Amino acid sequence: MSLAERVARLEALEAIRQLKHRYLNACDLKQVEAIRACFAEGEILIDYGPLGCFRERDSFVALYQQLACNERVIDLHHGANPEIELCGADQAEGRWALYYFNLDAVSGATRQLGGCYEDRYRCIDGHWRIVETRFRGHCTVLGRSLEAGV
Amino acid sequence: MSLAERVARLEALEAIRQLKHRYLNACDLKQVEAIRACFAEGEILIDYGPLGCFRERDSFVALYQQLACNERVIDLHHGANPEIELCGADQAEGRWALYYFNLDAVSGATRQLGGCYEDRYRCIDGHWRIVETRFRGHCTVLGRSLEAGV
Amino acid sequence: MSLAERVARLEALEAIRQLKHRYLNACDLKQVEAIRACFAEGEILIDYGPLGCFRERDSFVALYQQLACNERVIDLHHGANPEIELCGADQAEGRWALYYFNLDAVSGATRQLGGCYEDRYRCIDGHWRIVETRFRGHCTVLGRSLEAGV
Repeated sequence: MSLAERVARLEALEAIRQLKHRYLNACDLKQVEAIRACFAEGEILIDYGPLGCFRERDSFVALYQQLACNERVIDLHHGANPEIELCGADQAEGRWALYYFNLDAVSGATRQLGGCYEDRYRCIDGHWRIVETRFRGHCTVLGRSLEAGV
Repeated sequence: MSLAERVARLEALEAIRQLKHRYLNACDLKQVEAIRACFAEGEILIDYGPLGCFRERDSFVALYQQLACNERVIDLHHGANPEIELCGADQAEGRWALYYFNLDAVSGATRQLGGCYEDRYRCIDGHWRIVETRFRGHCTVLGRSLEAGV
Repeated sequence: MSLAERVARLEALEAIRQLKHRYLNACDLKQVEAIRACFAEGEILIDYGPLGCFRERDSFVALYQQLACNERVIDLHHGANPEIELCGADQAEGRWALYYFNLDAVSGATRQLGGCYEDRYRCIDGHWRIVETRFRGHCTVLGRSLEAGV
């Protein structure tokens, strides 16, 4: 690879990490349009196991709004251990761990979920987007806050 | 951007991430002088909500020492989802998620806090420093270890 | 440093982060051969405190298999706050925070452990490997899921 190609590779890895980070932060902060913009338009795959399987971004975003966009739902989506690999100049694959935590602001019930994302990304018009994402949880723990607070 | 400018941008992103990581690790390990050196000298802003608002680093570090530097306080400060953007050659903005966990080594009481940092960084004499940091928690959970250990 | 050297430095930092991420993900997913390949062959140091001290990778991997490779053990190993520094072209040091969480799938007992890795890496035949890793936990919390699930 030429030096320019090596720099472009590092820039792509950086952009893909920031894409996923923007998605995860937007999920915590309930920034619905920012979530939508992380996915490519047209046919994609969002396979979130028990939550459902979505072939385009709008139906996923609609479910997210219905489930998460109320004051009772307080969420953490923290990405960990990103392994990202380019497959050509405009495609990439990634594996991430996720720490997800949910607090029910009314009851104080908590749900912690650990799992793994397997993703595919594509660079479209100079912007990296998620085109496939599969999440599988393998560690669910239920609890209760002794006193819930915000 | 020239290739040299693109490399400089990647180096800056790397340095800023490591700055925040050094800060967070130093908070866990109670390395007071390392914490101080993460912030610029002179007028800055550290807005940690209920913990207080500080206009220079020494008053924040004094409070940190008073609150954290004893054997009863066991802390985790884990950064997640960094989104960093350069604004010119020597300024940058960043958004991070935080997983904070505190264990009271005497009582076994625990406090988990999730939230979001909004930061500004400046490169001064070749070193990136934090010049503004605002933290807002949105998920607090209180608990108790069945048996506290170190 | 020349531009080429600066790019090589960024590539090395990227490769070392991905090495540790691959190790941590493999520990969660019980990918034993992937774990083994993260460490150099020959004499190394794996000092995991109460878990033991190992001078080559095979004895550590054998213990990992014995402790973790059964359906009762559900683990999260999430790295945080990496600080990595090159020491020459083919050696590096790193400090990481770790969030470790274990769920006993039978009893629902949980153990959360926070701590710090101090690592040394070496680039051997073009591949970065872990040659020294010391982990010290400083925050252990025991609990119980109200209902364990996978």
